[in-house]
Amino acid sequence: MTDMETLLPLAEEVLSACREKGLMIATAESCTGGLIAGILTEIAGSSDVFDRGFVTYSNDAKKDLLSVDEADLEAYGAVSQQVARQMASGALANSRGQIAVSVTGVAGPGGGSKEKPVGTVYFGLAVEGSQTIHKHCLFPDEGRGRIRTLSIKTALDLLLNAAHSVSAR
Amino acid sequence: MTDMETLLPLAEEVLSACREKGLMIATAESCTGGLIAGILTEIAGSSDVFDRGFVTYSNDAKKDLLSVDEADLEAYGAVSQQVARQMASGALANSRGQIAVSVTGVAGPGGGSKEKPVGTVYFGLAVEGSQTIHKHCLFPDEGRGRIRTLSIKTALDLLLNAAHSVSAR
Repeated sequence: MTDMETLLPLAEEVLSACREKGLMIATAESCTGGLIAGILTEIAGSSDVFDRGFVTYSNDAKKDLLSVDEADLEAYGAVSQQVARQMASGALANSRGQIAVSVTGVAGPGGGSKEKPVGTVYFGLAVEGSQTIHKHCLFPDEGRGRIRTLSIKTALDLLLNAAHSVSAR
Repeated sequence: MTDMETLLPLAEEVLSACREKGLMIATAESCTGGLIAGILTEIAGSSDVFDRGFVTYSNDAKKDLLSVDEADLEAYGAVSQQVARQMASGALANSRGQIAVSVTGVAGPGGGSKEKPVGTVYFGLAVEGSQTIHKHCLFPDEGRGRIRTLSIKTALDLLLNAAHSVSAR
């Protein structure tokens, strides 16, 4: 089971940092399935910082809602740096947010391959006016819940670091 | 804190029932903030049943992503049967799913009013080819986490009952 409770203090920090910088957040989640949005909205008063989240579990959803390129989905797969970046950029473009994070990975227990074993997760981070970046992690295969927990934590860390480095609006 | 773990068996039942009937699920969440999608995707293999989720926390998100009517948002408020039904219908229309559930409510501790106290939650349920329905609950004000837990449970129950009553496709 994904462990949300340990991530609450970090989620509160993210909200505070974004609030201070006047940033609204959008999320685009595949393997975390809505839990990044879920932890951010666990905190009362998050509505002034959290705008919306896209849970794009299927490839169709990634294309329809986040304008992920079909050719890239075919060439690189849904779990790839290309798709992670496009998901983050798409969330930013299709929201009223100024900062967006995305996650796409193999949470297991199935779906792993030699090139992308269970625990492979790509993250995208898009900030208004900046180049979209990605991050690649290979988490230990200690179960679906644990991989999802680490993925949420990493996404929140990306949001927090980005919010800290943005100039106040 | 929202208690997800107790809801896992129910989420598994929802996935099985929808899988059996050939139904893909879409979700539209406001006060539950992505946790219905989160619990459904906690289960390995959910990708053949769960299509996508919309976390429409802001009113803008409800309008942009789910085509909720601005006049209805103003007339009835975001927490209303009208908006709940439109959220569910919008999720169905903007997904590849055949069944969609929506949630909009006052999880507190702030945001309550005399007409809509903390614990007021509206649900919408849209099934392809059927009329969209709503459900209204007033949960006891035992904290934000508890209200979110009960809201997720009610949404899963709605999906399960609907899946059971749909003819196999």
